Amino acid sequence: MTEPKQENNTLSLVYQEGQAPREITPDAVSDHVGDPRNFLWIDLASPDSALLAQLGNELDLHELSMEDALTTHQRPKLDEYGEHLFISCKTVELAESGIVQGDLHLFIGRNFIVVIRHHSGLDLARARERLARRQNGFKPERASALYFILDEIIDHYQPTIATMHERFRSLEELLLEGGLEQADLEKLYTIKRELNALRDVIDPMQAVVHELIRMHPEIVSKELKVYFRDVYDHVLRAVSTLDLLRGSASDAMQFHMATLTLRQNEAVQKLAGWGAILAIPTVIFSLYGMNFKTMPELAWTWAYPVVVLGSLAGGILLYRRFKKRGWI
Amino acid sequence: MTEPKQENNTLSLVYQEGQAPREITPDAVSDHVGDPRNFLWIDLASPDSALLAQLGNELDLHELSMEDALTTHQRPKLDEYGEHLFISCKTVELAESGIVQGDLHLFIGRNFIVVIRHHSGLDLARARERLARRQNGFKPERASALYFILDEIIDHYQPTIATMHERFRSLEELLLEGGLEQADLEKLYTIKRELNALRDVIDPMQAVVHELIRMHPEIVSKELKVYFRDVYDHVLRAVSTLDLLRGSASDAMQFHMATLTLRQNEAVQKLAGWGAILAIPTVIFSLYGMNFKTMPELAWTWAYPVVVLGSLAGGILLYRRFKKRGWI
Amino acid sequence: MTEPKQENNTLSLVYQEGQAPREITPDAVSDHVGDPRNFLWIDLASPDSALLAQLGNELDLHELSMEDALTTHQRPKLDEYGEHLFISCKTVELAESGIVQGDLHLFIGRNFIVVIRHHSGLDLARARERLARRQNGFKPERASALYFILDEIIDHYQPTIATMHERFRSLEELLLEGGLEQADLEKLYTIKRELNALRDVIDPMQAVVHELIRMHPEIVSKELKVYFRDVYDHVLRAVSTLDLLRGSASDAMQFHMATLTLRQNEAVQKLAGWGAILAIPTVIFSLYGMNFKTMPELAWTWAYPVVVLGSLAGGILLYRRFKKRGWI
Amino acid sequence: MTEPKQENNTLSLVYQEGQAPREITPDAVSDHVGDPRNFLWIDLASPDSALLAQLGNELDLHELSMEDALTTHQRPKLDEYGEHLFISCKTVELAESGIVQGDLHLFIGRNFIVVIRHHSGLDLARARERLARRQNGFKPERASALYFILDEIIDHYQPTIATMHERFRSLEELLLEGGLEQADLEKLYTIKRELNALRDVIDPMQAVVHELIRMHPEIVSKELKVYFRDVYDHVLRAVSTLDLLRGSASDAMQFHMATLTLRQNEAVQKLAGWGAILAIPTVIFSLYGMNFKTMPELAWTWAYPVVVLGSLAGGILLYRRFKKRGWI
Amino acid sequence: MTEPKQENNTLSLVYQEGQAPREITPDAVSDHVGDPRNFLWIDLASPDSALLAQLGNELDLHELSMEDALTTHQRPKLDEYGEHLFISCKTVELAESGIVQGDLHLFIGRNFIVVIRHHSGLDLARARERLARRQNGFKPERASALYFILDEIIDHYQPTIATMHERFRSLEELLLEGGLEQADLEKLYTIKRELNALRDVIDPMQAVVHELIRMHPEIVSKELKVYFRDVYDHVLRAVSTLDLLRGSASDAMQFHMATLTLRQNEAVQKLAGWGAILAIPTVIFSLYGMNFKTMPELAWTWAYPVVVLGSLAGGILLYRRFKKRGWI
Repeated sequence: MTEPKQENNTLSLVYQEGQAPREITPDAVSDHVGDPRNFLWIDLASPDSALLAQLGNELDLHELSMEDALTTHQRPKLDEYGEHLFISCKTVELAESGIVQGDLHLFIGRNFIVVIRHHSGLDLARARERLARRQNGFKPERASALYFILDEIIDHYQPTIATMHERFRSLEELLLEGGLEQADLEKLYTIKRELNALRDVIDPMQAVVHELIRMHPEIVSKELKVYFRDVYDHVLRAVSTLDLLRGSASDAMQFHMATLTLRQNEAVQKLAGWGAILAIPTVIFSLYGMNFKTMPELAWTWAYPVVVLGSLAGGILLYRRFKKRGWI
Repeated sequence: MTEPKQENNTLSLVYQEGQAPREITPDAVSDHVGDPRNFLWIDLASPDSALLAQLGNELDLHELSMEDALTTHQRPKLDEYGEHLFISCKTVELAESGIVQGDLHLFIGRNFIVVIRHHSGLDLARARERLARRQNGFKPERASALYFILDEIIDHYQPTIATMHERFRSLEELLLEGGLEQADLEKLYTIKRELNALRDVIDPMQAVVHELIRMHPEIVSKELKVYFRDVYDHVLRAVSTLDLLRGSASDAMQFHMATLTLRQNEAVQKLAGWGAILAIPTVIFSLYGMNFKTMPELAWTWAYPVVVLGSLAGGILLYRRFKKRGWI
Repeated sequence: MTEPKQENNTLSLVYQEGQAPREITPDAVSDHVGDPRNFLWIDLASPDSALLAQLGNELDLHELSMEDALTTHQRPKLDEYGEHLFISCKTVELAESGIVQGDLHLFIGRNFIVVIRHHSGLDLARARERLARRQNGFKPERASALYFILDEIIDHYQPTIATMHERFRSLEELLLEGGLEQADLEKLYTIKRELNALRDVIDPMQAVVHELIRMHPEIVSKELKVYFRDVYDHVLRAVSTLDLLRGSASDAMQFHMATLTLRQNEAVQKLAGWGAILAIPTVIFSLYGMNFKTMPELAWTWAYPVVVLGSLAGGILLYRRFKKRGWI
Repeated sequence: MTEPKQENNTLSLVYQEGQAPREITPDAVSDHVGDPRNFLWIDLASPDSALLAQLGNELDLHELSMEDALTTHQRPKLDEYGEHLFISCKTVELAESGIVQGDLHLFIGRNFIVVIRHHSGLDLARARERLARRQNGFKPERASALYFILDEIIDHYQPTIATMHERFRSLEELLLEGGLEQADLEKLYTIKRELNALRDVIDPMQAVVHELIRMHPEIVSKELKVYFRDVYDHVLRAVSTLDLLRGSASDAMQFHMATLTLRQNEAVQKLAGWGAILAIPTVIFSLYGMNFKTMPELAWTWAYPVVVLGSLAGGILLYRRFKKRGWI
Repeated sequence: MTEPKQENNTLSLVYQEGQAPREITPDAVSDHVGDPRNFLWIDLASPDSALLAQLGNELDLHELSMEDALTTHQRPKLDEYGEHLFISCKTVELAESGIVQGDLHLFIGRNFIVVIRHHSGLDLARARERLARRQNGFKPERASALYFILDEIIDHYQPTIATMHERFRSLEELLLEGGLEQADLEKLYTIKRELNALRDVIDPMQAVVHELIRMHPEIVSKELKVYFRDVYDHVLRAVSTLDLLRGSASDAMQFHMATLTLRQNEAVQKLAGWGAILAIPTVIFSLYGMNFKTMPELAWTWAYPVVVLGSLAGGILLYRRFKKRGWI
């Protein structure tokens, strides 16, 4: 199968028994959807409401689900509408500016699947290809299509999570080697923030896949259960990795802040210690800088060296004492 | 339909088959409620107990629910009273002084809905209009009315949440750019406080809508389930957004406090470093300010420049050392 | 009905059909309890074990429940003993020294209710009066009596919670205005401690009332369910208010501590800044306090004003720099 | 009944109908256990594996439960082994060195109970005595014996918890009076640590007793349910007390640390304030200690008092300003 | 039985009734697996995909499970695939560089068990030996094999946990004796980090074993239930020990950080105190170092000793005052 280009952001494919998938015009959708032997795959990128309304009319989609399909701030969820299901998913990608979220909505009807994408960089070509290949007993119908798409979405989370993981681990390594600077605190904060956002996006997918498995045997048949369970396991692992990372990021931030504070305090303490050591000769020297008429020591020949050496000795004594207490 | 003005804070409408809604006087309520083909919408703003008692008598409302309907510090809840349901909701609006909470109580009877409002700025005109329009198979009866009202209430939370979100994000952006001052800590605290209050108000709505869906099939019929599920999803999303924001606000506060502390400590440390650098020449200069008779150096011609330059050199040496350690 | 005085800390009332409640002597309890048409209300304040044992004998109370009824450190709980229920409640009042806890144990038999009070300031006169009034279809029997008592107990929590709320809010207001002193930290700590204690007392009442509603239809009949649900809602609201307050108290404490620390650090930092500014002239002045023979500047006519003004200029320069960095 | 001494760390008793319990030799166990009218109580302190194996053979105990019975680091748990139950409990006592944990394992068979004790100071004499007394309808059989033993174990936790409670309260009182020193932080830490250990030991007992009540009606008969519920309530109360104490200990530690830090900071701040006040005259005095030839003020008659008094006035001014700002 | 060496990282054993286990070549697997009276144990260390694919073909393993068996970053899980189960486990060992994780995947078919190991140091020789011994009614079949393997895996966690426990306890002991240095903070951080990683690996094993017991009676027969319950208890205990340790490590870190900060602050405070004590004579000495013409005290005979002793007395006074306040 050669993958047709998605022109005008729209792609409609019909899968017929024994044939390679064939691209059709959007207008031809209603002609094919009536025949239960056909399976339709429709993929729209950021459609306007008119286009969606027309499609909804042809496929008998529920008004509420169409409203949802146009929005971009959905939490992942699964809604049941008599004749069709509506599933909202989120995709994530790492851009320079941070994590970019996209929306991927799915309508799953008796013999069609509609994919609505908003700002999502996820390409479903591989899913379409697997569907066309008909391997391992997968036939081109909604359940297989849904499995391939979900599998793609969840797999698509991995590189982002892995990069976050790597970033954190390299910071943590530096941290344990004592090489983290104050500015790196911000990096840890940013990582934690993005991990939280990621979890917020991926976590509800657990419930979506779980509900599919538990409540929709008409889609997740006994034979397919293991495949959807596999998807479920992947979501679970992703969330569990994120939770572990989040906890670690919190711990690392606290540890780093504590280390920085202790390091600063230590500097102040050492400087204060040296200040104290120097304060002793300062006092003594000031003493003999006084201009009293009667200061007999001033006239003694050895007074000067005695005072200087005495001060020095006092300073050394103090230095040793502070050293012992760990104050210097 | 032209929306009648709500005079004297009271509005009573009767919806009859095939007719536009008609306003009636409060006295006429009992005349119409007997006919099951009528549907009554009664809206009272801060009624006194006498007015409510009269209405309760006509509509056979339970005494406990009427007590609750007069109070303004209810948690959102759903109570079942044989012939009618009682639902307590909260509305929130953003005023200059912060978030203002209002109460909106609902009595849902067989063929009537009573709305009691206290300090709530939520106008239900749009809900009444949708009810009158009879679109999408919605008939003017309690379930549709309840759906329109709940939908309105939940939608009404959005601008407040969005504003809080925006406020926090702009603070956070400043924070990451290092532009937050100490005074902004208070702003973060206030935001967190208001997010907590918001969550406290919105969270119990989850249980209310969930109970409606699960326990009241006589209202939430199979056809309407998707609509109430949609309301439920919106509450869920609101609470999840608030939770994410609350966590972020906590994190931001901690990060800001840590940054402020580190910044202050850094200043003290640097000043202490300079103090130490200056302490050396002070000691030496005091030394040669002593008035001993016998201080041979004093008479040496080059002693003065040597001492001054020596002190300077010592200071520079110390400066470099501190710089290297990051103490200055 | 005139409420009889509770003499000797004991009050026994018998409610008979169509008659006002009549006080009886403790000895007469066994004469009346046999007739199922009678309802007995027995109220004992801090009884000794002998008195309770006698009563237990007459009413066939279980030994374990009587042991519990004598103790004062029970957690609120509900125990089922074949023929009767035993409910342990806690009352709270605000005294000068803080929150004072009392115990209120209830035995609920087929046609009697026994109230055992320890150090509880809760007067049940209003409950007895409501029982005697027989309004709203309430008959003098165990379910009504239990409802009136529980309602009283839960209502009795409100003033304490409200006072705590008010105390905290006034502290928080001061906090946000920057008017809180270090000593107020202790007040916040004390408030939090008392909120914890309050929650510990009130929270288990949820389970007690819930178990009553769910597991004891022989008491909480279908008609009375709404009343017990109302009590349940009140407990829920009380606990939820306490939880919100506890969270707020924690947040306020943290914010206050952070503010105090930052304020102190700021003072130290400013003082260190001034120290640094003054250290410059000190060094210079010490320099020219040296007694070297050959210090040509000393003889220059303008040296003195130049040095003084130079030091001044240096100080001003430093001051401006520190000001700009926010160090002073 | 006179309680037989537990010689050689072993005690075997047989309870026969209508007779006082009679001590038997370990060898005689198999002779008596066959007769269902007999009830055997066997108590072993730290038995070796040979002794236990022999007993296990006679009583048909499961190999896994015997392995567990020899270990001392079990979490409290209940295991069901066809013919018998195995329950692992923990005892705690307060020694000088802290909390000492002991193990108490129970085998509950049809007509016997075996107690295996390791390092446990709990004496079950009272339980045996209650069993022999046959009061309140308790017959000498496994359910009664189990109840008496569990009751004893749970009661045995009370003094330890009470002592911990008292220790904490006295520390907290000192804390609120401001009398806690830095060294007391360690005491708070130790208390929290021991509270955690205690909770870890007692908390699983909840599940054990709950499982007994819910899953073993063959032991916890309807009549005995109230007694086991009472035990359950006691565990619940113990855990809830521990949880409250743990939370309080955390709060107290945080509060104490904050207070100590603030106190130290305050001292540093005040000392820095005084340093600044003294720095002014130091600068001025150094100024007039310079040796310039041309310093006209030096010759003025009133210069000296003016400078001294001026410095004093400056110091006082600064002092007042710092006092007002709370810096001193 | 002599344990055959695992050559080429592969070991295939066949257990036949009444015979000692016999090693077979991998090719012979398909010859033996057809006879239900045979039981096969196949153990592969880091197989390549070709080898696994061949085996999967012979044993009819599901493609998804084979994919999983090749990966090394699985969370422990149990998957059901019609004819066989797939269980993923983790092993942990303590190396110099920290905790090393290995993977151990299991395929459990009707009459075979396949073990796939990646980087796991766990030797299953003891499990194979127990299987061959046929003690306690264990026959060589999948349930016994699975029990022996799980038992081995869980037991294998113990030394690692015990070592972590010991490391922490020795650090904590030092901490309470005041002997912990700043560098030890990092050790505490590393311990906490490794405890988190350990928990993340072991915790999901709870769900795996629980699902085995609850959902797979075809494997965990009534007779074997106690054995799998025993495994379950061990996992539970391991996780609970880890949780207690993690909490303790957090507490210890906080306590240590607080102690370090307080210690540093104390040093700074004491040094500041001494600075203040020395500042007094410095001021006075500077005073009499001034060069005013008219300073009458300069000429007084006793002025010098009076000033020196006065300064000394002032210093002592201040010292005592600071001592009393705990500032020095």
